[in-house]
Amino acid sequence: MNEQWLQPPEWLWNVNTNEPTYVHHWVQQLKELEGEPDLIVYGAPISRSSISVSGASLYPTEFRRLWKGFATYNLDEDVDLVDLNVADAGDVMMHTTDILLSHRRIQESTAFLTQSYPGAMTSMIGGDHSVTACAVKGIKEAFPNERIGILQLDTHLDVRDPAELGPANGTPIRQLIDGATVKGEDVVNIGLHGYFNAKPLIEYAKKHSIQMVTLKNARKAGFVHTVSESLTQLSERVDRVYVTVDMDVLDISVAPGVPASTPGGLTTAELFDSLLEIGKHPSVRHIDFVCLDPSKDSVVSETVKTGVYAWLQFVTGLVNRSK
Amino acid sequence: MNEQWLQPPEWLWNVNTNEPTYVHHWVQQLKELEGEPDLIVYGAPISRSSISVSGASLYPTEFRRLWKGFATYNLDEDVDLVDLNVADAGDVMMHTTDILLSHRRIQESTAFLTQSYPGAMTSMIGGDHSVTACAVKGIKEAFPNERIGILQLDTHLDVRDPAELGPANGTPIRQLIDGATVKGEDVVNIGLHGYFNAKPLIEYAKKHSIQMVTLKNARKAGFVHTVSESLTQLSERVDRVYVTVDMDVLDISVAPGVPASTPGGLTTAELFDSLLEIGKHPSVRHIDFVCLDPSKDSVVSETVKTGVYAWLQFVTGLVNRSK
Amino acid sequence: MNEQWLQPPEWLWNVNTNEPTYVHHWVQQLKELEGEPDLIVYGAPISRSSISVSGASLYPTEFRRLWKGFATYNLDEDVDLVDLNVADAGDVMMHTTDILLSHRRIQESTAFLTQSYPGAMTSMIGGDHSVTACAVKGIKEAFPNERIGILQLDTHLDVRDPAELGPANGTPIRQLIDGATVKGEDVVNIGLHGYFNAKPLIEYAKKHSIQMVTLKNARKAGFVHTVSESLTQLSERVDRVYVTVDMDVLDISVAPGVPASTPGGLTTAELFDSLLEIGKHPSVRHIDFVCLDPSKDSVVSETVKTGVYAWLQFVTGLVNRSK
Amino acid sequence: MNEQWLQPPEWLWNVNTNEPTYVHHWVQQLKELEGEPDLIVYGAPISRSSISVSGASLYPTEFRRLWKGFATYNLDEDVDLVDLNVADAGDVMMHTTDILLSHRRIQESTAFLTQSYPGAMTSMIGGDHSVTACAVKGIKEAFPNERIGILQLDTHLDVRDPAELGPANGTPIRQLIDGATVKGEDVVNIGLHGYFNAKPLIEYAKKHSIQMVTLKNARKAGFVHTVSESLTQLSERVDRVYVTVDMDVLDISVAPGVPASTPGGLTTAELFDSLLEIGKHPSVRHIDFVCLDPSKDSVVSETVKTGVYAWLQFVTGLVNRSK
Amino acid sequence: MNEQWLQPPEWLWNVNTNEPTYVHHWVQQLKELEGEPDLIVYGAPISRSSISVSGASLYPTEFRRLWKGFATYNLDEDVDLVDLNVADAGDVMMHTTDILLSHRRIQESTAFLTQSYPGAMTSMIGGDHSVTACAVKGIKEAFPNERIGILQLDTHLDVRDPAELGPANGTPIRQLIDGATVKGEDVVNIGLHGYFNAKPLIEYAKKHSIQMVTLKNARKAGFVHTVSESLTQLSERVDRVYVTVDMDVLDISVAPGVPASTPGGLTTAELFDSLLEIGKHPSVRHIDFVCLDPSKDSVVSETVKTGVYAWLQFVTGLVNRSK
Amino acid sequence: MNEQWLQPPEWLWNVNTNEPTYVHHWVQQLKELEGEPDLIVYGAPISRSSISVSGASLYPTEFRRLWKGFATYNLDEDVDLVDLNVADAGDVMMHTTDILLSHRRIQESTAFLTQSYPGAMTSMIGGDHSVTACAVKGIKEAFPNERIGILQLDTHLDVRDPAELGPANGTPIRQLIDGATVKGEDVVNIGLHGYFNAKPLIEYAKKHSIQMVTLKNARKAGFVHTVSESLTQLSERVDRVYVTVDMDVLDISVAPGVPASTPGGLTTAELFDSLLEIGKHPSVRHIDFVCLDPSKDSVVSETVKTGVYAWLQFVTGLVNRSK
Repeated sequence: MNEQWLQPPEWLWNVNTNEPTYVHHWVQQLKELEGEPDLIVYGAPISRSSISVSGASLYPTEFRRLWKGFATYNLDEDVDLVDLNVADAGDVMMHTTDILLSHRRIQESTAFLTQSYPGAMTSMIGGDHSVTACAVKGIKEAFPNERIGILQLDTHLDVRDPAELGPANGTPIRQLIDGATVKGEDVVNIGLHGYFNAKPLIEYAKKHSIQMVTLKNARKAGFVHTVSESLTQLSERVDRVYVTVDMDVLDISVAPGVPASTPGGLTTAELFDSLLEIGKHPSVRHIDFVCLDPSKDSVVSETVKTGVYAWLQFVTGLVNRSK
Repeated sequence: MNEQWLQPPEWLWNVNTNEPTYVHHWVQQLKELEGEPDLIVYGAPISRSSISVSGASLYPTEFRRLWKGFATYNLDEDVDLVDLNVADAGDVMMHTTDILLSHRRIQESTAFLTQSYPGAMTSMIGGDHSVTACAVKGIKEAFPNERIGILQLDTHLDVRDPAELGPANGTPIRQLIDGATVKGEDVVNIGLHGYFNAKPLIEYAKKHSIQMVTLKNARKAGFVHTVSESLTQLSERVDRVYVTVDMDVLDISVAPGVPASTPGGLTTAELFDSLLEIGKHPSVRHIDFVCLDPSKDSVVSETVKTGVYAWLQFVTGLVNRSK
Repeated sequence: MNEQWLQPPEWLWNVNTNEPTYVHHWVQQLKELEGEPDLIVYGAPISRSSISVSGASLYPTEFRRLWKGFATYNLDEDVDLVDLNVADAGDVMMHTTDILLSHRRIQESTAFLTQSYPGAMTSMIGGDHSVTACAVKGIKEAFPNERIGILQLDTHLDVRDPAELGPANGTPIRQLIDGATVKGEDVVNIGLHGYFNAKPLIEYAKKHSIQMVTLKNARKAGFVHTVSESLTQLSERVDRVYVTVDMDVLDISVAPGVPASTPGGLTTAELFDSLLEIGKHPSVRHIDFVCLDPSKDSVVSETVKTGVYAWLQFVTGLVNRSK
Repeated sequence: MNEQWLQPPEWLWNVNTNEPTYVHHWVQQLKELEGEPDLIVYGAPISRSSISVSGASLYPTEFRRLWKGFATYNLDEDVDLVDLNVADAGDVMMHTTDILLSHRRIQESTAFLTQSYPGAMTSMIGGDHSVTACAVKGIKEAFPNERIGILQLDTHLDVRDPAELGPANGTPIRQLIDGATVKGEDVVNIGLHGYFNAKPLIEYAKKHSIQMVTLKNARKAGFVHTVSESLTQLSERVDRVYVTVDMDVLDISVAPGVPASTPGGLTTAELFDSLLEIGKHPSVRHIDFVCLDPSKDSVVSETVKTGVYAWLQFVTGLVNRSK
Repeated sequence: MNEQWLQPPEWLWNVNTNEPTYVHHWVQQLKELEGEPDLIVYGAPISRSSISVSGASLYPTEFRRLWKGFATYNLDEDVDLVDLNVADAGDVMMHTTDILLSHRRIQESTAFLTQSYPGAMTSMIGGDHSVTACAVKGIKEAFPNERIGILQLDTHLDVRDPAELGPANGTPIRQLIDGATVKGEDVVNIGLHGYFNAKPLIEYAKKHSIQMVTLKNARKAGFVHTVSESLTQLSERVDRVYVTVDMDVLDISVAPGVPASTPGGLTTAELFDSLLEIGKHPSVRHIDFVCLDPSKDSVVSETVKTGVYAWLQFVTGLVNRSK
Repeated sequence: MNEQWLQPPEWLWNVNTNEPTYVHHWVQQLKELEGEPDLIVYGAPISRSSISVSGASLYPTEFRRLWKGFATYNLDEDVDLVDLNVADAGDVMMHTTDILLSHRRIQESTAFLTQSYPGAMTSMIGGDHSVTACAVKGIKEAFPNERIGILQLDTHLDVRDPAELGPANGTPIRQLIDGATVKGEDVVNIGLHGYFNAKPLIEYAKKHSIQMVTLKNARKAGFVHTVSESLTQLSERVDRVYVTVDMDVLDISVAPGVPASTPGGLTTAELFDSLLEIGKHPSVRHIDFVCLDPSKDSVVSETVKTGVYAWLQFVTGLVNRSK
């Protein structure tokens, strides 16, 4: 009997001493949170509602898995995010085959979160773009008397006809306009470019007064400035702004994990800089990030890293807003 | 003006002279077929009904795309398939988000094809395994008084509970048994092995008298012989046999394009040899191949090639049957 | 007998209603075209003439396969391409082992097309860069009295010695100069940079007065402006301008499917913007795109998408030209 | 205020009802285990001791991550593993640059576990093959008076000289023999084949009476039978048998995730069947699985699935042993 | 000035002490060889003669690069290859675009090597299958009065019409028969199976008395035995036997780096075991290995490893022959 | 006997005529060099000192392998590098498991090279970032009375605690400061951005007066200008400047082969342009490039190409410096 081994060596059952300097140690479970959350993050892991085969349902898990590679300290802005209370509400549980039921659950979960935590911003991690319609409807349910505006960063208008496709990922903006949840004039799409919206969709957008700002024009005026101005103008007539970031707005060379991304799209710098402004802008209450399919990502997880970075830029903006 | 170039050179607008020696030149469109088809092939391109993310909906297209790499002449059996009338009915058009509607269309298309062409065998190309339930229900609809038996080559029982999942790809056999379309005792599953069926599923199978033949036991008695014997016994009590081949029955080392495949599975030789027998057996009227996801396949399309080969082995068997 | 199934259900033999809003529905077969074509597109699928192993011969097929992902409506320019008659003449049929014969066929097909449709622009889809020499010779054959200028977007001079390599992909410009089809001074190469042209090649270029504009210098003057100016100057002394785009001019980070691409190359924005100008410029009659190897492309087909986009930018320019 | 949303919907904060029918719900943390463990599993995540670049350190994590794809019920043997107490002791914490220290920790952790839980089998998940030397030394430390035999399934002898390489992954067996922890004659290597052991290593093995059984000869006598016989003979002269499975013993076509695997190796059936016997054999007290590098594995995780399957076969054997 | 550093440290300009125990240290350059070679290896790196895009021209380099992973000691046969004089004649230099010239060079190099080293066996490393016709013609040129027999391990007959394709990789056997270099009856093809030879090719083979042995029939009689018997019968009527191994004879699951490989092909064990016999057989004077495309191989170089292993099995057979 | 074949054909044993126009023909072995070297390149192929699994040890070999794709002529600068004497000292031989010994060898080799060739610049090719500490210590050993400054292009500070990790790749700068080899104020880090340095590391940097220039701020002042200014200021107080380029400073979209790269990083243009300046600056005596892992690189070797290009830009700068 070797006396030495009556106790386990420390390196066998080691306790990872908390390093609250990384994102995964900072974000807390909403159920366990003490105090009020400043920002809630929750997942909507559905992509069987996509027109093409998509693994975007895998994104919420991958998004959280990469948190450990990001410090809470933003060197560029000299800001530490830990002062903010960010809480993770987990994922809305999806049904295997009943897409409408899954959508309803996203809607109701959003209604619950926004109503129960009225002081908190929400950030939803998709899933494909169909989840945006659910979330906005949920917010409308919670705040039926408020007028909601949408800032959409997207290569596509997403106004295809749900009568044809059902509530698929090409339809959310049309669902909201046709269903009178949001007025067409309260939707601003920035980032459109190239050959990726058929003419009838443009006509729908014009008819419903959706504000279309091409990437080319946005860049002429300064991309970040355009985003900022749009928010200011939007906030003059709506009560709260919902920002939806379809990751296919990014140029395909920086977004291998977004199958619908295209050449001629946004740079990551443009995305990151505008998210700082979006985070800062007081009218913005909700944001989502959709259509990132980790199963297509590069070996070094380029796109998921970009997704986490983008979200943290929004959070940095929030810190600055609250100052 | 160069007189020489008043007519297009022959190598510009060349006509591919038909080479009826390859599969793509031999199979005809059902709509254009003269005479009665011996075998109908049709696609059921749905995989949003899968529990996991799946691109099996892409298989029917890839399956046909590789036909041009296969001659109609089977060297091993010294048989030329061209004597058989094989007709392609195209793909059943799927809805983007209404899975139940898509399933109904598969059922009704199968009902139509089997009723309208009573002399023809059918071979359906999935899609995920949920399509099998649709097809068998469609056949039952066309032949309500016939008793249908199922021979299932599969690593899984596929008797998960539709009350929980809806008509997902883990549930088809249970749908058919619970819905009284097929009796449990008329289902023979060959190929089960390892750790891939939870105990409650085994209990369901036993309770409903599903015949479970493990791969290990099938091999002891000779795999092909076991298949053959099972067909003979099944045919004694049913009117027609439906064979469903879940490609995940194959060993994962030969089926990179089937995400649910496992180590310890079937060899391609075992699959190919049994399909010869299945094709020959007079009681077999229908077959399907499911769960092959071309987006996961190897660079040289190993799994899709195997899928085409497997189907051609069944066709070779048919030729031998008709002799 | 179930009366319901005497007719095929509509979703089985569905007719795809034409959506003339996408490129694949808009471009017509040259043989079937009514009226005069404004632009002819044809493929030159050869890459066994490449110094390194290349699958560029697969590009024409992949190029057309991705048309369905592009709308005919250009949002940035508010232009719909459908007013233009674009006709597809198919691919020139290549011989398996006789490279000279294949080259001759490209030359003769180009001679035929340019002579028979004198009002049409031509756009040839390679293949490796050897095809450019064939096409220019073909045009010279059709218009022996015209002086042809070449605008080349390329990382390389492509003046390696055919006496050593035969008519390989590193030699087309030298073939044309040595063969007196084109004068050296009528060749403008924009996009050269870095360490990718050995000194003897530079000396050849200088000796023959090829105009070399490095990417660095082009950017100093404005890349698009440089292209535009070069065209204007070139058009003052030649009768028609042939533009050849070697896709290896693109930076390797945006062109994974071009094995010869390098760091320090063109951005897609620079390429797309210059193609608008090139399309607009009245002296430009012919264009080709070469050296894109789809077998090396990323999972989401980044480079082929870029190739289609580039071609559509040229077409957009044509629309503006004709206004 | 919408009363409905005062409580969170059940699908937001859903509790995963335990399904004790899958491996991940069955294996418990050693620290939390009530009762005595029958088998302990622990990780030794080191591969910077590999001669070639290796990511085998990532295997313990991937090994556990795939547990959820395996049921506890073994269909072939009609055995449910849940009756066995299997406990997970976690991973031994490795140092970043001090390889000797890391090795010492593995040794001491093994000494602790084997001494503190004398009734338990141990299964160590590597890491590269250097960890085997550590584990065996640890066992010797805990049971200094026992004679230890080794059954090695491996394509290589692993008797390279530590004087040259240090305690690298090519040296463990030589470390143990030269260090007098194990006698050469008590080492049986089964699975050697081909051209993968240089002659001086063969000479070392012969000089120290290592029993070398080539795969060819093992197959002639029946592979499983050879393994079984070797265990029986070994157990006649040693007190406990340590089994080490270098996954490179598998044929390269079934083990893409083992860079050192070769053509001409073991089939998975041979591995799985022998592990049943190994598990059953009363003299076997310890096992390890090494050299599986998940970063090289196929998209569908073929090799890690095989690794989990292999371990479960050993566990199934244990259940049969205890009967 | 630090005296210590006036001499370079030994680990900076280290001399790799020869380890003649690995293949790369054993095989010598033919030009530097003292004494007569027993076996000559040379490369024929051409694949632009392939019907499909192929990188088989890269194989000779990759083949040699992997030598360092193989010991000269064959454990199964207890044979050390170092007693044999194996010499590397390098690669025949290919022309970039003149395929006929490249072919002529292979022919002439083979003529030179076989005539100048009449006591040596030759092993040629392709390249695509077109090189076999060149090599056999070269041998005929060197030994015009000898009758040459061919043993072909191949999934295809390779008797497509050179009148249509030129001397492409589908035509070598037909070139040799039509050109009267070899009689049809002196060609034995073993390994044919499935749907990979169109009927007209079978008819050509029958008409010219090519001996076709399907894989199925070969296996019934014992694959190795069939090979052995075929060699014996062939050697009764020919003066020397040329063996050509088209690597596409291997099953696609073990040959990811052979784009033309198919399901239902040869196992590596069957290939390795027959090469031992082929090496032993006194009538065999020449061998080649063709159609392996390393650019398609798996990350762990499975197919190239198999190619080197196969060649070494032939060499092992030679050692046994000479005993 | 065919007289023709008594001599080997020229294309069999061809001599590659030197083309001194490419990098691989220009750089000479240091041992064989006549005259004094202007620049020495040597490899430090270690990456088992990396915190994460890394194949950066493979970089020196890949770096040299790609030289043949680069001409010595720099078109942008109209400079031919051949006038410079660049000598390759080979790789420092690493030990398999003794990391400290390997590090000592790098240190001593650097001491030897810098002392023995005092007129030469040195460029070291890593390996991971741990090698920088070794090299700087070696230089200090050779020139103990000189004050060394460091210009670091890096996304990270690399001041993690060696007391915790040993001399791992996250620690080199801290090793040098804590060991008093370099003063904190003599370290300038340019390129920091985002969320990739935990707060305690920032605090260490501030405490030791490391100059941190974020990428954002560098760009505001002009990236190249910032680099240039930093060198000028640094050179006012130090005797020689060591430049270390951690390739993870590059944006992840242009550096797939650098696992630690991130979104929001440097462009290749910024890197290339600053290396011109760095090469020109008279105070710079040493440079290294680290953390590039070729096993993760893209199919077309994007990152290794970028690495060679970067090194050549530094060499071009040297040429300009010497003018």
